[in-house]
Amino acid sequence: MRIAILGGTGDLGRGLAVRFCAAGHEVIIGSRDPSRGTAVAARLNLSNATGAANAGAAREADLVILACPHEGHGTFVRDMAPVLAGKIVVDATVPLGPGFTFAPPPEGSDAAETQALVPDARVVAAFHTMAARLLADRARPLDQDVLVCGDDPEGRATVIDLIASIGARGVDAGGLAAAATVEALAVLVVGLNVRYRRRDLGIRIAHLPPDARPR
Amino acid sequence: MRIAILGGTGDLGRGLAVRFCAAGHEVIIGSRDPSRGTAVAARLNLSNATGAANAGAAREADLVILACPHEGHGTFVRDMAPVLAGKIVVDATVPLGPGFTFAPPPEGSDAAETQALVPDARVVAAFHTMAARLLADRARPLDQDVLVCGDDPEGRATVIDLIASIGARGVDAGGLAAAATVEALAVLVVGLNVRYRRRDLGIRIAHLPPDARPR
Repeated sequence: MRIAILGGTGDLGRGLAVRFCAAGHEVIIGSRDPSRGTAVAARLNLSNATGAANAGAAREADLVILACPHEGHGTFVRDMAPVLAGKIVVDATVPLGPGFTFAPPPEGSDAAETQALVPDARVVAAFHTMAARLLADRARPLDQDVLVCGDDPEGRATVIDLIASIGARGVDAGGLAAAATVEALAVLVVGLNVRYRRRDLGIRIAHLPPDARPR
Repeated sequence: MRIAILGGTGDLGRGLAVRFCAAGHEVIIGSRDPSRGTAVAARLNLSNATGAANAGAAREADLVILACPHEGHGTFVRDMAPVLAGKIVVDATVPLGPGFTFAPPPEGSDAAETQALVPDARVVAAFHTMAARLLADRARPLDQDVLVCGDDPEGRATVIDLIASIGARGVDAGGLAAAATVEALAVLVVGLNVRYRRRDLGIRIAHLPPDARPR
């Protein structure tokens, strides 16, 4: 699959690029400055990754991941709307406010804001609680679950398959309304990292068998 | 410790009673009808549990657990306020609305509503995502984490110790503002149980070492 990671030079974007490349996907690391994405691909020694400007990266991709900071989320999505239309757009943004508070936009979640701004995109919220430094170290097993939600069941299923392709487990959390909970949970996990002096906490759904399939 | 479980004849209350009794705590199962609590204690063969009316149970206890349904939460807490004042009050209520939606009161969470109605109680939110049927089967290890939050650090620490006494792990999620996230997560877990046809899902904080202590 050809995957664009917008804001792909940040911690989460780099971690995802490492894992997607290892799984044989083609990755386009989007950035405001296309040379930065290229430099990241070179530095991480990712032979199947290239750098591009964000809009160009999205245009070329089958699936687009938003791995940008929360700040400026709405403006960024509005700017990108023409190249996101019709695509599966995976929003991983965590609405982290001052003092590790949950600070979502009026739509209830960053993912819901994306869906509102690009109505014909198939927005899927995912990857919020997975530790970037776990992703970045390809020697470590991806033993954290990814809660996946979105109003398009096919989009959700595609993202769950993508997550499986990198050796992790995507858990189907239903429609996009759940994104508020998943994003808030990510804020809570950031707080746990601070409180417990960790940098790689994440979540698991306990007692969900490995072969469980959603109905 | 002498623990009152109000609404203790429901699934969560019974499960907690089983584990608390097994850990040697004294349990008072509160119910509107005191004979129901007594009947539950007898049926579960819990020698260190008794039944009582909710208010009487709370009055006798060192620590009070609210294990009542979300419906009528505010009214119930208002009625109980005189006997909850000054105590550690563990609110386990999940604001489950129609269609498995998160339906919190205006305060943002049921636990915040409790704190607002009983300002001098030490309200701690806990136990929301732990599966009642896992609790009820004392042969099974309690391998699900309990997110614990509240504005009184000593109250949080007491509840984390209580959770350790039954063989589970309490994770310090900080101040009571986090209760909205924890309660919403419990609603999400209810949805996962439905979607995956399970009845005992819960959560784990991944990569948190067993000996980790919050700062």
